[in-house]
Amino acid sequence: MTDDVTTLAWAYLSRVAEPPCDEIATLVGEVGPLEASHRVAAAEVSDALRERTAARRDIHAAEADLNLLERRGGRLITPDSDEWPTFAFTGFGGAAVRERPQGRPPLVLWAIGPARLDEVAERSAAIVGTRACSSYGEHVAAELANGLAEREVAVVSGGAYGIDGVAHRAALAADGPTVAVLAGGIDVLYPAGHSSLLHRISNAGLLLTEYPPGVRPARHRFLTRNRLVAALGAATVVVEAGVRSGAANTAAWARALGRVVCAVPGPVTSASSMGCHVLLRGGAELVTRADEVVELVGRAGEFADEEPRPTGPLDGLSDAEKQVYEALPARGVRSADEIAVASGLAPTAVLGPLAMLEIAGLARRDDGCWRLVRTSP
Amino acid sequence: MTDDVTTLAWAYLSRVAEPPCDEIATLVGEVGPLEASHRVAAAEVSDALRERTAARRDIHAAEADLNLLERRGGRLITPDSDEWPTFAFTGFGGAAVRERPQGRPPLVLWAIGPARLDEVAERSAAIVGTRACSSYGEHVAAELANGLAEREVAVVSGGAYGIDGVAHRAALAADGPTVAVLAGGIDVLYPAGHSSLLHRISNAGLLLTEYPPGVRPARHRFLTRNRLVAALGAATVVVEAGVRSGAANTAAWARALGRVVCAVPGPVTSASSMGCHVLLRGGAELVTRADEVVELVGRAGEFADEEPRPTGPLDGLSDAEKQVYEALPARGVRSADEIAVASGLAPTAVLGPLAMLEIAGLARRDDGCWRLVRTSP
Repeated sequence: MTDDVTTLAWAYLSRVAEPPCDEIATLVGEVGPLEASHRVAAAEVSDALRERTAARRDIHAAEADLNLLERRGGRLITPDSDEWPTFAFTGFGGAAVRERPQGRPPLVLWAIGPARLDEVAERSAAIVGTRACSSYGEHVAAELANGLAEREVAVVSGGAYGIDGVAHRAALAADGPTVAVLAGGIDVLYPAGHSSLLHRISNAGLLLTEYPPGVRPARHRFLTRNRLVAALGAATVVVEAGVRSGAANTAAWARALGRVVCAVPGPVTSASSMGCHVLLRGGAELVTRADEVVELVGRAGEFADEEPRPTGPLDGLSDAEKQVYEALPARGVRSADEIAVASGLAPTAVLGPLAMLEIAGLARRDDGCWRLVRTSP
Repeated sequence: MTDDVTTLAWAYLSRVAEPPCDEIATLVGEVGPLEASHRVAAAEVSDALRERTAARRDIHAAEADLNLLERRGGRLITPDSDEWPTFAFTGFGGAAVRERPQGRPPLVLWAIGPARLDEVAERSAAIVGTRACSSYGEHVAAELANGLAEREVAVVSGGAYGIDGVAHRAALAADGPTVAVLAGGIDVLYPAGHSSLLHRISNAGLLLTEYPPGVRPARHRFLTRNRLVAALGAATVVVEAGVRSGAANTAAWARALGRVVCAVPGPVTSASSMGCHVLLRGGAELVTRADEVVELVGRAGEFADEEPRPTGPLDGLSDAEKQVYEALPARGVRSADEIAVASGLAPTAVLGPLAMLEIAGLARRDDGCWRLVRTSP
């Protein structure tokens, strides 16, 4: 069957060069996977691609790889699959991001699990953090993942010890979809102490990797894998992280991909919150509970828009103040809770902006409610 | 002596209407304090001012008030005094802020203490927070105030229980200048449990109020007083605060006055950090230690400038990323620490931006240092 031949071609291409491979992606874009696999196997390709595929050109393991995958109840998700999601490798940095080899969508994804990738990618958040987390971090990660799962937001993470594992477990406990992206082959469950957790994810959620079977996790693969965690979450939430950490790397990817980066604050006396505070000082969204993440996930993408720069009384207002200002009724009054609903902000997040608008003479408190103060245009 | 007569006039005007009083400030601006006091006493003023001064027009307590102040070793600081600082009641909101009666500098300040007001106002930060603080809040407030005092930054606060008191005490312990702004008369030490602390401040720092002797603190006076705490600190740092709190009010004033608003993060599980997290979500600067506050205090005012909006490879970078990008050397390499120095950011605050610049292809790591990557214009 053509389908099988094409799938075999994708599987061959997945192993023939260390992913992600720019040159293969480009060739597949030009001639399709089947023709691309023939040309690579025959070494009838550009010098650069010939060099990148020299070592594995003659490894024809596609059939064995796909058999192994099938025996485990898995499937190869390719750009031809119905469930292939939109990987938005654009955003801040634009061309500069795409020019870097890692700044590419995966060629294919080796997958096991009942969840459909396009569906989970549509409503998802990555929860990541340090392996050496505190009990505070564990508590917050579990609360967040549980809250997201209850609101049917898929929890994406890396399957690691610490925050990752807590997040996956809490999502599973709430019967929510959870996705673990591995840094090695689908049959190499890493870390070993999480093999039972990863099995549970493959039974209830989705286990994913761009590496063909048998590939061992390695340092550069964790960093490359992080871009997929970031790309699959509409937002990336860092719960606890050291200053130099994998979680900070995932957050940097999320930022580069135009995804929302969130961080949970913690005690300034705690080393495991330092990375979060650095991210927050760099502009990440401060989140304290699942609701706030759901808000951001629900409207992901809007953040990439250029902000309007009005000149006038609203100039200099923060985003939150503008949102609250615009949520004030044209006439009559509204309660703070109603303004929260209208603005899309959390009820607790509208009070500060309201006080500032009052001081600026743009809003007025009226019998416990709030009204707009007209300003001359 | 003319001076005495003028001082008596200021003292009379300070009591004749509840401060701050727009109409008196305007009248003094037009005809000077002496003539203003005559006109007010004779009720030869606008209807509005006649109404506002009706109740106290015939109270001639200026001499007694000044005698009391002198007996306590104090002085009346007026716009005529050498040490009168620049009160920048401008900034975001502009005219709207000034139009509100509280959006005014004080008419005069009743003061006791060896510190000169203009000197402390030149290099100062307000540290404020909830009375019901946690031991975490106490610890952080003490660390911050101690660090600021060591760097000769005056610690301004409200003399209240909780965070305020901890901040004053830590500044005193480090022999640093500290300023308490009261919400009542200089002879009404409130709260009573802090009378010994306030005495120490009046011996080593500065005790200030815009209210004449004998005036009792009242709810609206705390809110009015908060604007002075905000105005006297180049930055206002909220250490711990509930969502609706005096500290949040002080922060709103600081924001409205174009001063830097800072907040210390804490556990998301702690109610006394909720107000801080709301402020941070609203755009306050996240600070974790005194150094970061000193940085902000050292360059207060720069924040009021309109940000440039370049179009090109830097478009979409956060402020921190732009700062770091601009701190990269035109040729050769620089260490992260050198970039921190050049950018004015904390050493820990440049690592996140550097990682993001690297992903965007704008910076490159080179043997532990960093170099600029040229982009086509």
